[in-house]
Amino acid sequence: MASKTIYVLNGPNLNLLGAREPEIYGKTTLADIETATKARGRELGFSVEFRQSNAEGALIDWVQEAAAKGAGLIINPGAYTHTSVALFDALSAAKLPKIELHLSNIHAREAFRRQSMTAPAVDGVMMGFGAAGYRFALEALKSLIESRAGS
Amino acid sequence: MASKTIYVLNGPNLNLLGAREPEIYGKTTLADIETATKARGRELGFSVEFRQSNAEGALIDWVQEAAAKGAGLIINPGAYTHTSVALFDALSAAKLPKIELHLSNIHAREAFRRQSMTAPAVDGVMMGFGAAGYRFALEALKSLIESRAGS
Amino acid sequence: MASKTIYVLNGPNLNLLGAREPEIYGKTTLADIETATKARGRELGFSVEFRQSNAEGALIDWVQEAAAKGAGLIINPGAYTHTSVALFDALSAAKLPKIELHLSNIHAREAFRRQSMTAPAVDGVMMGFGAAGYRFALEALKSLIESRAGS
Amino acid sequence: MASKTIYVLNGPNLNLLGAREPEIYGKTTLADIETATKARGRELGFSVEFRQSNAEGALIDWVQEAAAKGAGLIINPGAYTHTSVALFDALSAAKLPKIELHLSNIHAREAFRRQSMTAPAVDGVMMGFGAAGYRFALEALKSLIESRAGS
Amino acid sequence: MASKTIYVLNGPNLNLLGAREPEIYGKTTLADIETATKARGRELGFSVEFRQSNAEGALIDWVQEAAAKGAGLIINPGAYTHTSVALFDALSAAKLPKIELHLSNIHAREAFRRQSMTAPAVDGVMMGFGAAGYRFALEALKSLIESRAGS
Amino acid sequence: MASKTIYVLNGPNLNLLGAREPEIYGKTTLADIETATKARGRELGFSVEFRQSNAEGALIDWVQEAAAKGAGLIINPGAYTHTSVALFDALSAAKLPKIELHLSNIHAREAFRRQSMTAPAVDGVMMGFGAAGYRFALEALKSLIESRAGS
Amino acid sequence: MASKTIYVLNGPNLNLLGAREPEIYGKTTLADIETATKARGRELGFSVEFRQSNAEGALIDWVQEAAAKGAGLIINPGAYTHTSVALFDALSAAKLPKIELHLSNIHAREAFRRQSMTAPAVDGVMMGFGAAGYRFALEALKSLIESRAGS
Amino acid sequence: MASKTIYVLNGPNLNLLGAREPEIYGKTTLADIETATKARGRELGFSVEFRQSNAEGALIDWVQEAAAKGAGLIINPGAYTHTSVALFDALSAAKLPKIELHLSNIHAREAFRRQSMTAPAVDGVMMGFGAAGYRFALEALKSLIESRAGS
Amino acid sequence: MASKTIYVLNGPNLNLLGAREPEIYGKTTLADIETATKARGRELGFSVEFRQSNAEGALIDWVQEAAAKGAGLIINPGAYTHTSVALFDALSAAKLPKIELHLSNIHAREAFRRQSMTAPAVDGVMMGFGAAGYRFALEALKSLIESRAGS
Amino acid sequence: MASKTIYVLNGPNLNLLGAREPEIYGKTTLADIETATKARGRELGFSVEFRQSNAEGALIDWVQEAAAKGAGLIINPGAYTHTSVALFDALSAAKLPKIELHLSNIHAREAFRRQSMTAPAVDGVMMGFGAAGYRFALEALKSLIESRAGS
Amino acid sequence: MASKTIYVLNGPNLNLLGAREPEIYGKTTLADIETATKARGRELGFSVEFRQSNAEGALIDWVQEAAAKGAGLIINPGAYTHTSVALFDALSAAKLPKIELHLSNIHAREAFRRQSMTAPAVDGVMMGFGAAGYRFALEALKSLIESRAGS
Amino acid sequence: MASKTIYVLNGPNLNLLGAREPEIYGKTTLADIETATKARGRELGFSVEFRQSNAEGALIDWVQEAAAKGAGLIINPGAYTHTSVALFDALSAAKLPKIELHLSNIHAREAFRRQSMTAPAVDGVMMGFGAAGYRFALEALKSLIESRAGS
Repeated sequence: MASKTIYVLNGPNLNLLGAREPEIYGKTTLADIETATKARGRELGFSVEFRQSNAEGALIDWVQEAAAKGAGLIINPGAYTHTSVALFDALSAAKLPKIELHLSNIHAREAFRRQSMTAPAVDGVMMGFGAAGYRFALEALKSLIESRAGS
Repeated sequence: MASKTIYVLNGPNLNLLGAREPEIYGKTTLADIETATKARGRELGFSVEFRQSNAEGALIDWVQEAAAKGAGLIINPGAYTHTSVALFDALSAAKLPKIELHLSNIHAREAFRRQSMTAPAVDGVMMGFGAAGYRFALEALKSLIESRAGS
Repeated sequence: MASKTIYVLNGPNLNLLGAREPEIYGKTTLADIETATKARGRELGFSVEFRQSNAEGALIDWVQEAAAKGAGLIINPGAYTHTSVALFDALSAAKLPKIELHLSNIHAREAFRRQSMTAPAVDGVMMGFGAAGYRFALEALKSLIESRAGS
Repeated sequence: MASKTIYVLNGPNLNLLGAREPEIYGKTTLADIETATKARGRELGFSVEFRQSNAEGALIDWVQEAAAKGAGLIINPGAYTHTSVALFDALSAAKLPKIELHLSNIHAREAFRRQSMTAPAVDGVMMGFGAAGYRFALEALKSLIESRAGS
Repeated sequence: MASKTIYVLNGPNLNLLGAREPEIYGKTTLADIETATKARGRELGFSVEFRQSNAEGALIDWVQEAAAKGAGLIINPGAYTHTSVALFDALSAAKLPKIELHLSNIHAREAFRRQSMTAPAVDGVMMGFGAAGYRFALEALKSLIESRAGS
Repeated sequence: MASKTIYVLNGPNLNLLGAREPEIYGKTTLADIETATKARGRELGFSVEFRQSNAEGALIDWVQEAAAKGAGLIINPGAYTHTSVALFDALSAAKLPKIELHLSNIHAREAFRRQSMTAPAVDGVMMGFGAAGYRFALEALKSLIESRAGS
Repeated sequence: MASKTIYVLNGPNLNLLGAREPEIYGKTTLADIETATKARGRELGFSVEFRQSNAEGALIDWVQEAAAKGAGLIINPGAYTHTSVALFDALSAAKLPKIELHLSNIHAREAFRRQSMTAPAVDGVMMGFGAAGYRFALEALKSLIESRAGS
Repeated sequence: MASKTIYVLNGPNLNLLGAREPEIYGKTTLADIETATKARGRELGFSVEFRQSNAEGALIDWVQEAAAKGAGLIINPGAYTHTSVALFDALSAAKLPKIELHLSNIHAREAFRRQSMTAPAVDGVMMGFGAAGYRFALEALKSLIESRAGS
Repeated sequence: MASKTIYVLNGPNLNLLGAREPEIYGKTTLADIETATKARGRELGFSVEFRQSNAEGALIDWVQEAAAKGAGLIINPGAYTHTSVALFDALSAAKLPKIELHLSNIHAREAFRRQSMTAPAVDGVMMGFGAAGYRFALEALKSLIESRAGS
Repeated sequence: MASKTIYVLNGPNLNLLGAREPEIYGKTTLADIETATKARGRELGFSVEFRQSNAEGALIDWVQEAAAKGAGLIINPGAYTHTSVALFDALSAAKLPKIELHLSNIHAREAFRRQSMTAPAVDGVMMGFGAAGYRFALEALKSLIESRAGS
Repeated sequence: MASKTIYVLNGPNLNLLGAREPEIYGKTTLADIETATKARGRELGFSVEFRQSNAEGALIDWVQEAAAKGAGLIINPGAYTHTSVALFDALSAAKLPKIELHLSNIHAREAFRRQSMTAPAVDGVMMGFGAAGYRFALEALKSLIESRAGS
Repeated sequence: MASKTIYVLNGPNLNLLGAREPEIYGKTTLADIETATKARGRELGFSVEFRQSNAEGALIDWVQEAAAKGAGLIINPGAYTHTSVALFDALSAAKLPKIELHLSNIHAREAFRRQSMTAPAVDGVMMGFGAAGYRFALEALKSLIESRAGS
């Protein structure tokens, strides 16, 4: 029986959401997003495994776990987006549907945020929709899972 | 009364969709996408103005028209994504909700496609979901329009 | 008999003048500038052919027309300033007195606006004087025309 | 029945040929070249569709038309050689034999002319033979068409 | 009541102090520095939370803890100085007075040590004073804390 | 009462004008320009303080003096245009209307002259009009002074 | 008495060996390699401490431990090879014989894998021999240990 | 009496033709090409001196010999195309008509093959026509020789 | 008898302190700083030679004088920090204890201010503490002087 | 019958071994290495063809010869490692097992030695083991030959 | 009557000669060199005007003076070699025979010393001969003066 | 007894001297220079071994020979100046006095000639004195030989 679990992984400093630079990221906290994402996941027929870590190694561990047990993966790699070859490798090795997500439009910020090291290893990318992006990503991920299952 | 029209603009070579490199872009034609996008637009309460041009100048004209008459804008700038300062300027001047959309994940292709000149001028970016991306973009755009109206 | 026509060509998004980012470009519209430029042209003994297009190809066509029929050329290439080798070629081939003009000081803006691809092909450059720059450019162009006629 | 039409497309400022910088490009006009190319085409058993435009969009339209109706394609992209990702995409999608042609040796000119954005999308490249290059390109194109037909 | 705790955070390999390359870093150990820093802190009216880790994630956790509970922060990010966008983000979000400290003058070493990724996120930077730098940084931090309290 | 003095500052080697490379700069001497500029200044209602130095420090001193005593500033920084951060700082701190002027079109010369370090610190830039540029700059400066006074 | 322990440290994603991209890395698992390496180590008269972690910090901890307790060190830093200044520092400080090892030839892969940040800090480098490389590295390390002991 | 000898020089590894990477270069051997080129040369009224060397110095010697004794020169510099300033100098000094030829389209291969160090020193360049390119180059060279003789 | 004089040298535009961009540099004038620095110097047992110049050459002269007569040197090179190889050379040759000081954190400003040309030539660097930095630098310099005397 | 000959090719200046910079390369001469390599080769069941040349062309000739007659290839390309596209091409065309070998760790030397042009064309790379590296490379090459024979 | 004066100009920090880094520059002082240069000048029939300044502006003044009054010019621009466009301009405008001289071989030092901004403006360059270089430069300059006089 | 032989080595295309681009290199042939150099050598007490080759390998062989048998070395590496790491290595290993010589001022030519790969490996450099440079280099080399003998 196929997995019904979607991993939603959040990188460094995303635990500060609602506190850090609300003019960029809004006032919603990560706990708010977790609640909303799990609810929306249930509606779509999935259970959501929602996690956050400031440690690159933990994120890699979880990507590997998702590849072994999950139906799909949404990752907001935070600042590791721009620097982590190791996370890129973990994502490349994870052969499940996967989406990279950013709260803000990284192209509209500092130059060093305009390059994503990890994006070439995922299926799709979404950014700039704030907390609502998690919902859109869930829906798009469901579509990726279904189209892959059907192919 | 606020506009109920969403502009969906498509750049160079997107008229070839279904013919050009189907291993990257799939077999759906742009006409198929137009039909589906308009239908989904109606369900969401919008009329969709769906256009394609190979000419940078025409795309700029249409972005200006959208800014004057539209409720929101989805643009797949095709190859102009990577080179057009003029389109960036037109988008920057267009103060309506707007999304940049790509069929494929541009980060997973040639190096010169990894930089988007236009993305800093939009609210959100989506890529890698093929034809389904138009549907996801419409939904996200509706959310952007509503949240801006409500703020 | 020598031509008495000066071409004043305006590039992409300049038709938005007065609307787009007035904190940078001021509130004067392009129609206001056209009126003032033609009036000042008449005082200086010239008829002014004043045009705007968002299309790179149209601007090239007009530069070629100016080279064939005009006494001098003022061009505000807008965003094509920074990217258009084709416009550079058209200007290089146009052997009449010519001035590149910008409303704002392009050196005080984004890094990608600090390089002008087209400027090496003109006689003089002026920037940062807003709408008044058209007047100053007309006067300088008259001086270029006369000094060339006299040499 | 296979097409017998060869498209010969000429980019920006090539309409000035014979006038612009004759020390680089010679005194032959584009009309002269058109006449000679059509005559040589007839000798080789082809009808030649010979066109010029200053507009990137028109060139893309024509490349798409050539891909649909033509037996082969010769393109002198002029300045768009160095900047147009959109033309590169159009050429990549055009699965007919195709040759990029330049009148002058672009390697012996300014640094920005030494990179061809479009060349990776064609079969062969010829440059530095002036107007005679059109004749050589026709002959080489015939050879490409025949070898592909025979393979 | 305002916090009286100053966090002094030390990055990778600083636990080797006194052993690693004493010709650059001197023979004092990190424990020696901890003792001296705490003593000096007490004299200045602060308690000092002194820590070291080789893990980027742990340093980010501690910066977040400092932001929540501390009066000020001194960080010697070691090699993460030059690579960690995540630590930059954590420091940017931490709205307390903060100083980046290096034992050696990083400008006098290898080229890759001359860029600090983290320095733009702190108030002040000190380097090149060896173990004594901790004392100077404490004093400067006190001054920053007082001037902010007073403003 | 507002100052009626305009400072016209000339950088290194401009004292050679008329002697150095007349094919680029023309045969007019700096003394000729001084005479004409002062005359034109009087007509416009200003007294002109006209100076030249080969020393970066002297130019900085004079920019500071102009900021303290002048109504406006025209500066031809010569070669310091391309290298002097110190002059950029002095100009940034000088809150009077100011124009950067070059005799030749610096974009049409060596690559290292195409970047202006100082231009982001002025209001407007003019180049390529030879000695006549001083006259055009005076007029444009008057316009800047008046519009600032009137705002 | 001199240490007889060789540390063999493996970086991020190497725990996936045999699963991740077998066309590049082969089907042997890391457990297979551990068994073979320990056996070969015994034959050469060493005990082998064989470890893997996805965390940069853990790898640094272990390099420090190896420096304190080991006779020699073999490290396959995985993706941290290309980004970790901190690991470079740890290796530089570790004054025991040490070899950097890669399963694949990193020069034959993506451009960003062709630079090794860590290699300047080791004695020797081996790559491209797959699982057999661990055996070759052990033998070479033994030789380094003996030649250093003898010198 | 003018020379009737055309030098056709082939650089490193071209002796492997037919063996090395036939998917890029085809199965024709260099001996086949020599035979065909000499035959075509005779038809055009020339004797062909056809040579190959892996040594940069030998190619330079031959270019000098061709300049002294030949009517024209075709050179396929192989990998020296991208690196040899010395060959560029030899070609620059050789004042006879000369063509650079490549079997494959070097623009469609690795990035380091997209720059030709030698091309600025020849009259024309041809690439991408495989073995047939030698024939086309001979014909174009004849045309260059005749037009130079006639001018 | 050892010198008891500390040179405190200030570079271009620092004479404007209190006037130029007070949001970056604060309202304290350079005269205020001089007074405070001399007072603090006396407390520490030193006489302070406090100077400012806009001229690179004068600063070099004074660095040489300090090397000959002083006990230590504090230099705020202003904009010459980023461009002056000559000042770097003068500092390198000056074998007394020396500190580079900046009022603001240069890492948090424009990109061109993030590189210090001069910093590799000093013992320590301090920045971001405003006028108070002079006091901290004096204290640190005293420590450098004493530790060198003691060694 | 399969070849039993291993080619060991040495590039420029390796004939100086034992004389040139012994602090980097040791005191063993190339003749010493040749003797030891041949002996070890015999033990492993191979005859060793051991050569050295300062000429790039000769090395290419020998790589081609090895491809035609040899069982495997070890090459120490010396300085051509960093510059020779021609050697890269020769190695790419040589479809036998091959290893690039360096006496010293090229990553620990000048920046221009950190890039290997040739390494992408071989199976494995070894460096930093001095003269002993030839022995390790022979053993690894034997393993490559056997595993290829067996596959 | 032609000038018999040779200007020998020395840039920043050369007054420290004999004191600054004698391991690079030797122990001879600038006064020693002046004496020797004047003596050798007399033997060659010239009077030598020997000067040193730390100020860029003074060096420019003197180059202009030399151009007006001198027979030839030797300049050791010190650190201004690498940064001064203004000195390059002054030298370019000075139409007398001129030589750039360096005591040390600037190619064997830091990377930033390997580029000479000023060298393109002189006739010849000499470096690496220490104090003796002044003598060699005088002799070469005499030869340049005579060959120019004779042409 | 010390060697009295000076090697004067000339690189690619220098055999063309007097023929190739006389406006840059003059009309003197290499044979003329050889005669003059040998004569001047005899006067200075040396025999001169004067050679030229177009082959990099031959030049390396000769540098090695010079190191073994010569008293000093003058090398004009021609185009290999800019590309040859192998020649740099050979020169570095040659521990005799050596001078790099160029006929023209390489700084006043194409950008790719402004970098010397070989210069860091010699004692001194001279350029821009045409054929006379050989004479000046001989004299300077004699001085280097004597000062080394005397030290």
